[in-house]
Amino acid sequence: MKPAIPKGTRDFLPEQVNKRNFIFDNLRKVFVSCGYLPIETPAMESLATLTGKYGEEGDRLLFKVLNNGDYLAKADPEALQNIDSVKLLPTISKRGLRYDLTVPFARFVVMHRNDITFPFKRYQIQQVWRADRPQKGRYQEFFQCDVDVVGSDSLLYEAELAKIYDDAFSRLGLQVHIRINNRKILAGIAQIAGISDMLTDMTVALDKLDKIGMEEVTIEMKKRGIPAKAVEKIADILQNPNLDAMKTALADSAQGKKGIEEMETVFTYFPPEKANNTLIFDPTLARGLDYYTGCIFEVIADPIAYPSLKMGSIGGGGRYDNLTSIFGLDDVSGVGVSFGAERIYDAMDELKLFPTSIDGGISLLLMAMDKDSHLFAFDLLNNFRNAHIAADLYPEPVKLKKQMKYANDIKAGHIIVIGEEERNTGMFNLKNMETGNQQYLSVPQIIKVLSRS
Amino acid sequence: MKPAIPKGTRDFLPEQVNKRNFIFDNLRKVFVSCGYLPIETPAMESLATLTGKYGEEGDRLLFKVLNNGDYLAKADPEALQNIDSVKLLPTISKRGLRYDLTVPFARFVVMHRNDITFPFKRYQIQQVWRADRPQKGRYQEFFQCDVDVVGSDSLLYEAELAKIYDDAFSRLGLQVHIRINNRKILAGIAQIAGISDMLTDMTVALDKLDKIGMEEVTIEMKKRGIPAKAVEKIADILQNPNLDAMKTALADSAQGKKGIEEMETVFTYFPPEKANNTLIFDPTLARGLDYYTGCIFEVIADPIAYPSLKMGSIGGGGRYDNLTSIFGLDDVSGVGVSFGAERIYDAMDELKLFPTSIDGGISLLLMAMDKDSHLFAFDLLNNFRNAHIAADLYPEPVKLKKQMKYANDIKAGHIIVIGEEERNTGMFNLKNMETGNQQYLSVPQIIKVLSRS
Repeated sequence: MKPAIPKGTRDFLPEQVNKRNFIFDNLRKVFVSCGYLPIETPAMESLATLTGKYGEEGDRLLFKVLNNGDYLAKADPEALQNIDSVKLLPTISKRGLRYDLTVPFARFVVMHRNDITFPFKRYQIQQVWRADRPQKGRYQEFFQCDVDVVGSDSLLYEAELAKIYDDAFSRLGLQVHIRINNRKILAGIAQIAGISDMLTDMTVALDKLDKIGMEEVTIEMKKRGIPAKAVEKIADILQNPNLDAMKTALADSAQGKKGIEEMETVFTYFPPEKANNTLIFDPTLARGLDYYTGCIFEVIADPIAYPSLKMGSIGGGGRYDNLTSIFGLDDVSGVGVSFGAERIYDAMDELKLFPTSIDGGISLLLMAMDKDSHLFAFDLLNNFRNAHIAADLYPEPVKLKKQMKYANDIKAGHIIVIGEEERNTGMFNLKNMETGNQQYLSVPQIIKVLSRS
Repeated sequence: MKPAIPKGTRDFLPEQVNKRNFIFDNLRKVFVSCGYLPIETPAMESLATLTGKYGEEGDRLLFKVLNNGDYLAKADPEALQNIDSVKLLPTISKRGLRYDLTVPFARFVVMHRNDITFPFKRYQIQQVWRADRPQKGRYQEFFQCDVDVVGSDSLLYEAELAKIYDDAFSRLGLQVHIRINNRKILAGIAQIAGISDMLTDMTVALDKLDKIGMEEVTIEMKKRGIPAKAVEKIADILQNPNLDAMKTALADSAQGKKGIEEMETVFTYFPPEKANNTLIFDPTLARGLDYYTGCIFEVIADPIAYPSLKMGSIGGGGRYDNLTSIFGLDDVSGVGVSFGAERIYDAMDELKLFPTSIDGGISLLLMAMDKDSHLFAFDLLNNFRNAHIAADLYPEPVKLKKQMKYANDIKAGHIIVIGEEERNTGMFNLKNMETGNQQYLSVPQIIKVLSRS
């Protein structure tokens, strides 16, 4: 048989694993320093937990796992007869694969509410599965990386999460724009324009601003039935998209004022001028409105720094007030952001932002000239390995040409050839495979050189 | 609804994630220093890849994933009619969850044979899923951790893997016995006893030696039809289970002699007296005979050091010659070992071998007396966080009693209360929550103290 993997899934070669771990290790360091704790949830959740949480489309994209054993034993006979997959499903499948990290987190919080302390700050880096049609850059298995605080409505956390974005992307060396808005400001704009009942239409149109520009957005709003006068008012308010102007414009909306106040508090804790990246208030930012109740975030790669990079948002999130209600626990406010791990990877790869050491091979390969030297070299390895230097020995004392080819193939950083003389003197020729430079050194000296490189 | 997770699966609380990562981080460091590279494979594999590789029992225990969309559209009508789950299965499910890391690795090597350099040294730490009946210590989702070298038959790698066991368990602080044998030695014993055709019966019986003792093993062998004289001969050979005695005893078996020679070579590369743990030749070790073709390994927690610990093997592996043949690539010899991550976790937990810092909370919690101090404290956090100290601030400047309760609940290592005086002087009272000790310090001094702790 010719082996293959399912469409939409991927094998990860060492270089890819190392690059991905470079991202996650850096994010993890930021999360941990900020007091966030790791949790993990099972790949399989009960379909009762997952179904109905992601809309109709989501239900369709859930991977369902067949019940074990004779899964037809309890199958609905009528559904079988009628070949009705929808009706048959609940009688042959009880489990599905994790679709995101948000619903499992909500379930986790409710189930473990007596084991955790609120406010509970958690991060979670795990894979999710979606039966989307595979295409370039879209997979059926991919990593998500979420950071949330639940059990407090303090705006301190909005500021902290903006700072986490700022610190995390600085660590990764990827310049970003962190856009921030507040759902209450959007509601205020709709109120002032007299179309509170059409808030969703307004935001759906606004969400396309990046792609189609303001002119097209106004056309879209009109198409959606927003009166021309209201559209004009909205465009007018958004002409000066800064906090001061908005404050004046929304003075007559209690909700709008509350939203402005919240933004001001966030910026008092974390002033935009203190950010390494661009942290910017953007009243047109509208993502995921139904879900979010306060601040909303979105991160994009800096379009000025990387004009050639075509990529959507690489992060997003916001404040939600009812996440755990679906599982019966009310009044738990939360705020969280996620990092679009796959896109961050693709962006960093395209921009060559990964440290070059990642795609390199081991630091040192030993080559032996004869059997005795091979034994000697194996023992010698311990010195380097104990000093955390990735070191190896070619498996046989064969012709040097063959060993050298291996050193090149695995991109070894340095090599040492060991024969009788080296065994007797304890001095070795360390050759840098990139520069070709050679140094005649003792073991402690070699460790010094390689620890630096 | 009352939320729950599927039977046999687990949520992991922060302390558990940290403990598990402590194990994996330590193992990873050993693997990397020895030149092993990480790979990852998808959770879902084609059922064509998985089916038939784990025996009938294994096929039954595979989790199968339903095809997407109208999964009954291509269902076998006859199987539907007859309610025949076995016959229906291939027409409604094409994917299954990873059952181990060995078969996916074999598939990976064959698929990527042009992208990798042989000998290829890889480690893989991922979850696997098995529809086993859940019970204490047995889960349907659990981690496996495998280290393998493929594409070389050098015995250097047997020595290296024994050394990796030795180093890894030393790092974890868990004393172990590393038992090693060779399939050719077992074959030699059977040959000398004149029962080469009953090798499997002999080894199945021998495998129980630990549990039932030699007397019962001889009874078992007889029950299995091995002639009394042969049983006597086997018992006789095994009476002196050291290499020298075995060498004499197996002098007339070419296979047996080869096995002894291989063992001697392994011990020349890695002499047992150089191991930190007990590395011991054990001719009765017989695990997984059908699969392995040369050396075999098994690791158990040191029964002398931990007499109260009741636990089976926590690691095992060996040399195999035909792993990739199932996917059409012949003549790729390999050798590998795995670490029983779940059992290692349980053993270390029971023996309290995890560093106490793991179940502790953040290093430092700041508490603010008033609104200005709260803002000040949020900014102050950066000093500690940038120095990689896990530091946090209570979300509101509420009554200290409430903030103190939170500090206790999250097991904060130290606290600082910040009011007007602290803001003005830049000097802070650092309180160690364990000892109750207080020190009056500047920020750089605090960083020094907390970086040490």
